[in-house]
Amino acid sequence: MSATASSPLIAETKSARVDSLALDCGVTLAPVEVAYQTYGTLNAERSNAILITHAFSGDSHAAGIDPESGKPGWWDDMIGPGKGFDTDRFFVICSNVLGGCRGTTGPSSLDPATGSPFATGFPGITIGDMVRLQAKLIDHLGIQKLLAVAGGSMGGMQALEWSVAYPDRVVAVLPIASTARHSAMQIAFNEVGRQAVLSDPDWNNGNYHATGKPPSRGLAVARMVGHITYMSDASMREKFGRRFRDKETPSFHFGVDFEVESYLRYRGLQFVDRFDANSYLYITKAMDYFDVGAGFPSLGASLARAQARFLVISFTSDWLYPSYQSLEIVNALRSGNRDVAYCELPSTYGHDAFLVEVAEQGEIVRGFLTQTHKLLSRKSGSRS
Amino acid sequence: MSATASSPLIAETKSARVDSLALDCGVTLAPVEVAYQTYGTLNAERSNAILITHAFSGDSHAAGIDPESGKPGWWDDMIGPGKGFDTDRFFVICSNVLGGCRGTTGPSSLDPATGSPFATGFPGITIGDMVRLQAKLIDHLGIQKLLAVAGGSMGGMQALEWSVAYPDRVVAVLPIASTARHSAMQIAFNEVGRQAVLSDPDWNNGNYHATGKPPSRGLAVARMVGHITYMSDASMREKFGRRFRDKETPSFHFGVDFEVESYLRYRGLQFVDRFDANSYLYITKAMDYFDVGAGFPSLGASLARAQARFLVISFTSDWLYPSYQSLEIVNALRSGNRDVAYCELPSTYGHDAFLVEVAEQGEIVRGFLTQTHKLLSRKSGSRS
Repeated sequence: MSATASSPLIAETKSARVDSLALDCGVTLAPVEVAYQTYGTLNAERSNAILITHAFSGDSHAAGIDPESGKPGWWDDMIGPGKGFDTDRFFVICSNVLGGCRGTTGPSSLDPATGSPFATGFPGITIGDMVRLQAKLIDHLGIQKLLAVAGGSMGGMQALEWSVAYPDRVVAVLPIASTARHSAMQIAFNEVGRQAVLSDPDWNNGNYHATGKPPSRGLAVARMVGHITYMSDASMREKFGRRFRDKETPSFHFGVDFEVESYLRYRGLQFVDRFDANSYLYITKAMDYFDVGAGFPSLGASLARAQARFLVISFTSDWLYPSYQSLEIVNALRSGNRDVAYCELPSTYGHDAFLVEVAEQGEIVRGFLTQTHKLLSRKSGSRS
Repeated sequence: MSATASSPLIAETKSARVDSLALDCGVTLAPVEVAYQTYGTLNAERSNAILITHAFSGDSHAAGIDPESGKPGWWDDMIGPGKGFDTDRFFVICSNVLGGCRGTTGPSSLDPATGSPFATGFPGITIGDMVRLQAKLIDHLGIQKLLAVAGGSMGGMQALEWSVAYPDRVVAVLPIASTARHSAMQIAFNEVGRQAVLSDPDWNNGNYHATGKPPSRGLAVARMVGHITYMSDASMREKFGRRFRDKETPSFHFGVDFEVESYLRYRGLQFVDRFDANSYLYITKAMDYFDVGAGFPSLGASLARAQARFLVISFTSDWLYPSYQSLEIVNALRSGNRDVAYCELPSTYGHDAFLVEVAEQGEIVRGFLTQTHKLLSRKSGSRS
């Protein structure tokens, strides 16, 4: 390892092609492109690979500096030399999800059958489909068994799905600020976002690629709702309070009065530049459909398939994915005598905490992975 | 009193005309119509009048059965013979707010200067303006002093405003599930609703009266967001859970899958039929601007102007107007040695609790009003 704790990783997006992918809805997609990045080095035993699964609007650029934009990855504070996911010791992989718009096949990709974007011709997808594609990427990389799968929010759902879909291919699973299934309220917030997109006339039944005019207004509103749910009452109060933006008194019109209004509008507009509206629809539906206990008498019966050891993390002020949802996972695993550690970390950052509360989270993840690696080495008899 | 506890009130909407109203923004509106309803009988001393102030999307039909629609008022379980606001003893008044769309002058009213709806030519309004108009209605009804002003949510803001704007005209004030000022998160949710309306091309800069095509899609999305914030995680789980609507398996399209989606869409569409989009914009801005402590060194210093006795009520699961906001009011009043009682009532209904948790709330209100009436009678030397 030549990297030191201070040298930033350089992020490089690679692409793999998967011949075909059978989806839960019955359709088979062929071929499928997967965009991914890797950090660190795969060891000779191929036993040090960790898959990072991203949240709703994330992508494969989890760590390092993008050479073009100069921007760090979305979990750069957690992944790197000496960090929570230590790239001096582990080979870290992150791929853009199926249905996404950052290099992996999704509704904005060209349909080989028509030569035009799939748009709403793209088949409905599930978290299970996303994970099945990740497994094919892991095959492609010549890795039989992952040391860990870890992710926050929707990334945590994928991690959970890995534990039961490929129980013999993952040693440790880290669902962070996540849930075994969306509650009615989580579905409701997603539905509001979808309705904001669907009701924008520019959505045009999904065929906005032809008009060149995406449903930017609806997508911006959808993102604004999202941003509120990612923060907390306390973090919004700290960050914005009731401060006016560039004024002292009310405008008495519908422009920006308050800082928080300006922030939300900015975030909404920013999102429109980097995210595909149809991907928004497909991926939020996949989240809502996800229920790792579906088809089983209980969540515990479902998670009984898992063989991995678990580290479940939640954050006190996260009201979008509240701690009780993490505890449901923990209790279900414990009822099946599974190896599970649980931490509820204090934070005022709401759901965003899994992205920004890196100090304590990083330490806990680091310790858990070190222990996992040791257990594995002891079992296999190989040196760490 | 001829009414018995079992006979429902018949609601009749009346209208009063106020010559002119000077607004906080500097504009004077003239004339101004006020739609109102009354229940019970004003006593000879004119000392038993209670003003009920409605929440954001409410109107003057607070109680009784509307003879046309057959529907009960929005607080019918709280107002009536033998109820919390006992119409056998009190004369109860409720008026539609300034800026509303249910009979009181608002942006959908005709501008006398042009003969067309004001639309965005309507001046910006505040909670203070709403209260000033209510005071003129009370003048019109020949009432010098109200026994009480009571309301939930935005109605609670008006009640608070009454306590400091007309300290000598109100004996008791009941702010329920309310706040002395909106937090950043409350402003943020309102701003999302406004952006949903503003970004609907049918809004047409507010001039949709001319086209006959109101911004229904945007307004429906705004209302959907609102409905989520009025409920609680627990009440949504109880009411909808993850139940599918008329199906067993995912549709894999963007139609309705879950019950909660169906409910939100229905509520959104229903709202469009009864609410004016420009009223939505003006009234939410008035709520966001409201800060009863503005211009004073502290909330306590502002509320020190109040002479009324207070009953402040909040509900445990109300995350939109959380209990800490009611406690801020209570603590500020106590710091000024004001007469204040506070109840935090247990409920799983979220913000909607003030509308639906009527049993305990009704008892507490009833007791508080009885005591207030007794104190007043003792003071004035008149018989109760």
